[in-house]
Amino acid sequence: MPSVAFIGLGSMGLPMARNLVQAGFDVRVWNRTAAKARDVPGARPAPTPAAAADGAEFAVSMLADDAAVEAAALGPDGILAGLRKGAIHVGASTVSIALCRRLADAHAARGVGYVAAPVFGRPDAAAAKQLWIVPGGAPADVERCSAVFAALGQGLFPMGSAPQASLVKLLGNFMIASTIEMLGESLALAEKAGLDPSRFLGMLTGTLFGAPVIKRYGQLVADTAFEPAGFQLALGLKDVNLALGAGEELRVPLPLASLVRERMLTALAQGRERFDWSGFASVIREAAGLEPVRGPR
Amino acid sequence: MPSVAFIGLGSMGLPMARNLVQAGFDVRVWNRTAAKARDVPGARPAPTPAAAADGAEFAVSMLADDAAVEAAALGPDGILAGLRKGAIHVGASTVSIALCRRLADAHAARGVGYVAAPVFGRPDAAAAKQLWIVPGGAPADVERCSAVFAALGQGLFPMGSAPQASLVKLLGNFMIASTIEMLGESLALAEKAGLDPSRFLGMLTGTLFGAPVIKRYGQLVADTAFEPAGFQLALGLKDVNLALGAGEELRVPLPLASLVRERMLTALAQGRERFDWSGFASVIREAAGLEPVRGPR
Amino acid sequence: MPSVAFIGLGSMGLPMARNLVQAGFDVRVWNRTAAKARDVPGARPAPTPAAAADGAEFAVSMLADDAAVEAAALGPDGILAGLRKGAIHVGASTVSIALCRRLADAHAARGVGYVAAPVFGRPDAAAAKQLWIVPGGAPADVERCSAVFAALGQGLFPMGSAPQASLVKLLGNFMIASTIEMLGESLALAEKAGLDPSRFLGMLTGTLFGAPVIKRYGQLVADTAFEPAGFQLALGLKDVNLALGAGEELRVPLPLASLVRERMLTALAQGRERFDWSGFASVIREAAGLEPVRGPR
Amino acid sequence: MPSVAFIGLGSMGLPMARNLVQAGFDVRVWNRTAAKARDVPGARPAPTPAAAADGAEFAVSMLADDAAVEAAALGPDGILAGLRKGAIHVGASTVSIALCRRLADAHAARGVGYVAAPVFGRPDAAAAKQLWIVPGGAPADVERCSAVFAALGQGLFPMGSAPQASLVKLLGNFMIASTIEMLGESLALAEKAGLDPSRFLGMLTGTLFGAPVIKRYGQLVADTAFEPAGFQLALGLKDVNLALGAGEELRVPLPLASLVRERMLTALAQGRERFDWSGFASVIREAAGLEPVRGPR
Repeated sequence: MPSVAFIGLGSMGLPMARNLVQAGFDVRVWNRTAAKARDVPGARPAPTPAAAADGAEFAVSMLADDAAVEAAALGPDGILAGLRKGAIHVGASTVSIALCRRLADAHAARGVGYVAAPVFGRPDAAAAKQLWIVPGGAPADVERCSAVFAALGQGLFPMGSAPQASLVKLLGNFMIASTIEMLGESLALAEKAGLDPSRFLGMLTGTLFGAPVIKRYGQLVADTAFEPAGFQLALGLKDVNLALGAGEELRVPLPLASLVRERMLTALAQGRERFDWSGFASVIREAAGLEPVRGPR
Repeated sequence: MPSVAFIGLGSMGLPMARNLVQAGFDVRVWNRTAAKARDVPGARPAPTPAAAADGAEFAVSMLADDAAVEAAALGPDGILAGLRKGAIHVGASTVSIALCRRLADAHAARGVGYVAAPVFGRPDAAAAKQLWIVPGGAPADVERCSAVFAALGQGLFPMGSAPQASLVKLLGNFMIASTIEMLGESLALAEKAGLDPSRFLGMLTGTLFGAPVIKRYGQLVADTAFEPAGFQLALGLKDVNLALGAGEELRVPLPLASLVRERMLTALAQGRERFDWSGFASVIREAAGLEPVRGPR
Repeated sequence: MPSVAFIGLGSMGLPMARNLVQAGFDVRVWNRTAAKARDVPGARPAPTPAAAADGAEFAVSMLADDAAVEAAALGPDGILAGLRKGAIHVGASTVSIALCRRLADAHAARGVGYVAAPVFGRPDAAAAKQLWIVPGGAPADVERCSAVFAALGQGLFPMGSAPQASLVKLLGNFMIASTIEMLGESLALAEKAGLDPSRFLGMLTGTLFGAPVIKRYGQLVADTAFEPAGFQLALGLKDVNLALGAGEELRVPLPLASLVRERMLTALAQGRERFDWSGFASVIREAAGLEPVRGPR
Repeated sequence: MPSVAFIGLGSMGLPMARNLVQAGFDVRVWNRTAAKARDVPGARPAPTPAAAADGAEFAVSMLADDAAVEAAALGPDGILAGLRKGAIHVGASTVSIALCRRLADAHAARGVGYVAAPVFGRPDAAAAKQLWIVPGGAPADVERCSAVFAALGQGLFPMGSAPQASLVKLLGNFMIASTIEMLGESLALAEKAGLDPSRFLGMLTGTLFGAPVIKRYGQLVADTAFEPAGFQLALGLKDVNLALGAGEELRVPLPLASLVRERMLTALAQGRERFDWSGFASVIREAAGLEPVRGPR
């Protein structure tokens, strides 16, 4: 089986790396805090991203933000410095389209393929190989990654170039956040009118609104179950900012994204850093005169 | 079979009345323009709502707005003037919670039952007995309407009192409108980034966003297929205003509803009265520098 | 001096009626709670608006909302029932343009003049004859009111028809509310950055922003001096709703008015009915993590 | 007279540099396109910012954005590389508070004073020495700049630290943009109601809203006089983004700034790069069904 460098063993990267080992790939891993490597039995730790990538056919990166990706990919000891000509870097992180464009260009200049492959799904979906993957890049490169993708997810939605795929991920997260806003407003009004939130939600998901995103986030909002975080508020804010930035670059105003951004900022101003990103619904509740989280606490 | 007065033979009421005839009810119909009664074979026309309701066990009303409902229900020749004690009025129209409350009180004062029973579904769903019905009222009254509901819809979601059920309908329409806004912003940005709108939509509905409302309205927005209208913009605006009014009464700010309201007003200011309510996505497109409707037509 | 009926002795109407007495007019007054008439020495109380208006050359009405104006002007014992042909009704209340239009039509049909004359200024300005008056109506009618206006205000801004003058009042109040929003956001950010609010405000009013509205409301917001109310939040909300309604009728979206409306609703949802309308800045403060009102109190 | 290095001869910097020459300072100038130096008779051109600053007591920089300031101040041939210990750099540009903080720190580390001194006023005010200056920095440093400020402006509003002064400038521009939004919405509704925009504006500025900012921008909006630009839309957008960024850092949501940002983006999406920043009122007009700029053109 081909060799894969896996860069970034956070809550998403860790189960993904394990799945690659389990699928039989020869995996080398790197993480900022090196001890994490022990959590991927069967993989060999590497001291730098470049060392992990040295000689590998694929590198997969899954990191927290633009700064981390830029350092790990383009830094002096970064992935690109280690990969040989003809290898492929699969960027699974959620990044700005501006950085994605720079990554694609830098890799092309060195004869290395770059495939953006952002994923939809939370850590439990990653562990269960149930991610949805949205690859973007040269079709031949995307094709060559088939076995890697098969080891990680349940479905592929190729979506054009690398920056286009990156944008699709930002749009997806913007839409999840918008769904939380929609649910937050509806459920606050329903609750103040004396309706049972779960019963109201059941009607929605039993009729027109029966989507996984509404079931999952609807339950969190109806239960005000904002802790522990599956995906932190500050990360959600980062992604909404990236969507707004993409909109600015392409001259597309996104007032719904601005509304969500303000909700998130308000939640953070109240010190709710530990809340899940659905927790900005607490702000919607307070504006309506409800407790931010339904008691007793 | 029991006798039913059916009041209002518009695009929704007409197929509903037919289904009641087909289910074996003894149906008398009234419509503002009387000739419409001929479109319900097997039903007898009545000169006034009161005459239609005279002696009936049930009256079902399906009218366009608060003013029409108030006149047909509470006017001198209205439903309530015709129904005998112990009969039940099933109000299927989308109305303000204030009017719903007045209807419930007025009927109670005369010993007539009032069940609010707003429906989700477009005319094609009404014709196919595929409506979802959200009844609200005294449980015994709701129970007595079972056969009526069975003749009209595919599912029942009892939701408390009559005003509560009315509110649920307003919330549902607010959520559909919010979904159109979310799709409109996302698809505008996707299109300006060179993505294929239908392909992007397919990814959404194939993953987290696979709900009927997103499939139906997503396709309309992706295709900019805003004419002919399934549900007119001005009616959508009316319903969003009713949701905002309910929010005001209960002190629940709904900024997402305000955003949608402004989009609709903008579309109407451009003279798009004939557009479907999803057509306010044309305004989102224009703000992004895209044509309101993708040409050539 | 001509005779004047004065209808409505609230916080604005009372000093206005006194000024008319002082200017030498023969004044008859009516108020919902009759005892208030004693607070206008030199005026004669009347048992109904019609009785007050009977035989008078002018009637001036200053009431709280559309419902009060409609009853006092068009009711069976209302102003219009009492005024003789050729008399003039000066409507100083802030009302919807729809009601203003109906008032103008109803008066015209009876041969009575109707001049809308909304005013800018708080009770202290009313007492000091410092109101700004915005009359609208037939130019000859407006001209005939000169002595009345001279007794009440410091300046006249004739502004077309009666509904146009009514709209100008709604726009003025919308702009004051917008100014409060602008000040609220700016001062919240300034305060969190450690700037002294009063000093910052002094810079603004000492340079580009030196308007009475910014000095007065800026100080209230900077000091979080929201009680006692000069003009109550709920009345402010009513006026912003009237502006939104005028925008809806004329197809003009007003997102800034919607933003302000949501702030006001949020403040009311927190139980701040007694706050001045500038008190919705407390909501802006809370969203930023500041105390709603700066303590200790 | 002391020597001053002046860095940046744009539409604002050029008249400011001339005024320093006229006040008797020994001025050396640097501009990206060197030929501009000829437009400041009596000043000596320098090949780099460092060369201009070499030996000077003061350096004044007036540049377009963060990138230009960072390069000219902190680059290898930048101002800080040229100034001697004890000299003072007066930063008059509008920059992010993050950059301002870095500038203050970098200068302090080298024993050079840094005074942020953003200004309010357009080029004509700069030429007429009518700028308002908002200095921030160590009080002794601000004091030492008195003669420089006296040569440039009509009034001083010291406002704490350098980043605090920078923030005040961002807030001021946010408030101007908010004023344009408020005027744009009001004038659109007034115009659709048949009111004369200038007459309506005259009422506003003759009563509660008599501030220079409302007179100037109100006239531009009332006349739809958006070209030529006094301050370009794209620069306005940059500043509103900086205000939003400051709000994000300090956790202060600014929905009014977001609204204005979306208006500006919409105007740019229509290709209105050459419009004055007040020109986003064209978008408000279009949303109301009015022509973006009143014809005939």
